[in-house]
Amino acid sequence: MGQGSITRRYRFCAAHRLHTDHLSVEENRVVFGKCNNPNGHGHNYVVLVTIGCPSTVQSRQAVGIDELDRIATERIVNRFDHHDLNQDPEFATQTTTGENLVLLIWDLLVPQIPDGQLKKVAVIETRDNYFEYMGAAPFAARS
Amino acid sequence: MGQGSITRRYRFCAAHRLHTDHLSVEENRVVFGKCNNPNGHGHNYVVLVTIGCPSTVQSRQAVGIDELDRIATERIVNRFDHHDLNQDPEFATQTTTGENLVLLIWDLLVPQIPDGQLKKVAVIETRDNYFEYMGAAPFAARS
Amino acid sequence: MGQGSITRRYRFCAAHRLHTDHLSVEENRVVFGKCNNPNGHGHNYVVLVTIGCPSTVQSRQAVGIDELDRIATERIVNRFDHHDLNQDPEFATQTTTGENLVLLIWDLLVPQIPDGQLKKVAVIETRDNYFEYMGAAPFAARS
Amino acid sequence: MGQGSITRRYRFCAAHRLHTDHLSVEENRVVFGKCNNPNGHGHNYVVLVTIGCPSTVQSRQAVGIDELDRIATERIVNRFDHHDLNQDPEFATQTTTGENLVLLIWDLLVPQIPDGQLKKVAVIETRDNYFEYMGAAPFAARS
Amino acid sequence: MGQGSITRRYRFCAAHRLHTDHLSVEENRVVFGKCNNPNGHGHNYVVLVTIGCPSTVQSRQAVGIDELDRIATERIVNRFDHHDLNQDPEFATQTTTGENLVLLIWDLLVPQIPDGQLKKVAVIETRDNYFEYMGAAPFAARS
Amino acid sequence: MGQGSITRRYRFCAAHRLHTDHLSVEENRVVFGKCNNPNGHGHNYVVLVTIGCPSTVQSRQAVGIDELDRIATERIVNRFDHHDLNQDPEFATQTTTGENLVLLIWDLLVPQIPDGQLKKVAVIETRDNYFEYMGAAPFAARS
Repeated sequence: MGQGSITRRYRFCAAHRLHTDHLSVEENRVVFGKCNNPNGHGHNYVVLVTIGCPSTVQSRQAVGIDELDRIATERIVNRFDHHDLNQDPEFATQTTTGENLVLLIWDLLVPQIPDGQLKKVAVIETRDNYFEYMGAAPFAARS
Repeated sequence: MGQGSITRRYRFCAAHRLHTDHLSVEENRVVFGKCNNPNGHGHNYVVLVTIGCPSTVQSRQAVGIDELDRIATERIVNRFDHHDLNQDPEFATQTTTGENLVLLIWDLLVPQIPDGQLKKVAVIETRDNYFEYMGAAPFAARS
Repeated sequence: MGQGSITRRYRFCAAHRLHTDHLSVEENRVVFGKCNNPNGHGHNYVVLVTIGCPSTVQSRQAVGIDELDRIATERIVNRFDHHDLNQDPEFATQTTTGENLVLLIWDLLVPQIPDGQLKKVAVIETRDNYFEYMGAAPFAARS
Repeated sequence: MGQGSITRRYRFCAAHRLHTDHLSVEENRVVFGKCNNPNGHGHNYVVLVTIGCPSTVQSRQAVGIDELDRIATERIVNRFDHHDLNQDPEFATQTTTGENLVLLIWDLLVPQIPDGQLKKVAVIETRDNYFEYMGAAPFAARS
Repeated sequence: MGQGSITRRYRFCAAHRLHTDHLSVEENRVVFGKCNNPNGHGHNYVVLVTIGCPSTVQSRQAVGIDELDRIATERIVNRFDHHDLNQDPEFATQTTTGENLVLLIWDLLVPQIPDGQLKKVAVIETRDNYFEYMGAAPFAARS
Repeated sequence: MGQGSITRRYRFCAAHRLHTDHLSVEENRVVFGKCNNPNGHGHNYVVLVTIGCPSTVQSRQAVGIDELDRIATERIVNRFDHHDLNQDPEFATQTTTGENLVLLIWDLLVPQIPDGQLKKVAVIETRDNYFEYMGAAPFAARS
């Protein structure tokens, strides 16, 4: 089987604030800087979802993209668009960093997509900031 | 004098929520839709500031840009970057729409820039949304 | 009244071919070059629609944008997206150049938008090609 | 040998229509939706071609890029630019999906490029749609 | 006549250094900062040329664009691409600022384009820097 | 451990000229074409630096990015921004091609970044030109 893939681009606008209850108010300010400002700030997030092409049976392609769009819209865009990430239950005990966000999006998508087809999730937070996750490496536990 | 201009691009990340105290909770939801979601959302805002070139005396150019950068950073970027627009005192009685934001940025910049040199302020809120203000038209009051 | 404006961005993918019945087959080839190739080619068109801000009454803003989106989607995107421009009745007797397309989009939008609020329509055909129309100049007939 | 690569960007504008003779008129409409509209639509396609850097002998670099440009222009840009993909002989029996297009471009380029240097071909169809092919995986037949 | 326009995008890569003989070595360093570094630096310049659409006679359009491309390539791209702007004779006595460059490009193009059709020249120097010139205002000498 | 990564984007404007002392004046002209023009030209270079995410301990993230920014600014941006690459001591004996530049940036960064965390360095020279280096492959010497 060849190594082909399709990437679809989704977007949502959300507020967030970098802050962890494991640190004091002062430590949070030192570690996260202006990203820890009270009341938060926000971004136009871009999410790129890459799935492998399992076959070249032609008529299955468009269905695959439609289905992926439905899944990503329901699970990701509707959940985060025009919301405050810090209020999301999954972020109750972790910080809303790009690293954690890309992992959460992976974890929300992977049960919906059959056959190990999900290859990569990427999050663009600002034009200078890009996060990527390609799943746990084979024969290695995710720490 | 020729009609030349320089445009500089600045950026800030901010949270906001469309909401006005002039409307009821239900009316706010109808008028502003998902932009009225509690806890707000956010954007990577881009601000474009255009000033006229008052002369071609060459050595004055770089100074002009440095000075404009200092003004825009102090008055705009430092004020809004990594903040919640709805907490800004200027937005205490008006909604944080793009139209109001571009007017506010104009009003913050214009007293700092000599000689009617400020020609245009533009705000890009998302890739599909763009606001522009070029000052009050001559012989017309700003309503 | 101030000179403020809002610009919204829309997109459609369409086929077209530059060809006019006023010229012979050979003349068409000379005038339009590869754009005259039989069977046509296509583009990801971007349409930018700019409307003036008639007032700063805040609650009217979002309504205005929602309404503009509804009009542009119904009149422009639904009409041209995933179609062949040369089959459009309005292009039965004129060539599908960017100049003609931007004029047609203006003419389709202007009766839907009250009060002379439509300020500008622009069409991006390729990254190197941009067309703009701002209406007939005052006191001048459109030729 | 280090894992270095060069990517060059090419573009062509083409028409296409998603349709397969293996399905009925009605099935085509269900599977491909608006992409199956009669008369087709089109895109500004971007093609990214990545080749490995086989050595650091400096004077060979520019030659390599010139040569790659010549090959990609002759084999890809001249073939598809301002044409209808559905008329291409290679698409006589398969659908002009992005997956098939990226495979075809790979197959057209690979015999022209020595030494397994071709590493990746990518096609951007719209700003939200991206296809990639990196060749058949080692020890695996391409299905 | 309607207010329509076409904008074409051209590019060139050039070196330059901000420096004027009217200032001392030390003054140049203060005024131009790192842009005055010896040996210069460089940019990927983008030039946007806007011409008015004088008529809607369809067959004249493509010719107009071809002709504009020929003029801009000969007069601008070939002159500046892969050159050092400071070596250009026109910059012998003036500094290679964006303001001066956009004026020079206007002056090089305007004699080639009939009938006052040239409406605007813009130069993008970096993603944060944009220069524009629209000709001398009517009834006003260019200073 | 999962395969996550962060990519940061940096920029510098620099002059350069493709030329090698191993070739004659005439050979240089043939091999490098207009890139060999005397006095050089220049680019707005973009550098993308990708580091692996070694752990999900949340409070370490922002520190990591701050630290990476400090390293990249000190070692790369300050060194090359507004300079002529051909004057850099590291380019005394090699040509300032994109391939050599991406290797040099890797070599300047890798001793500053602990634990094999540097995963990829990429250089965008123009919008059509992209260079990437991911380190020497395991069990293979870099030629």
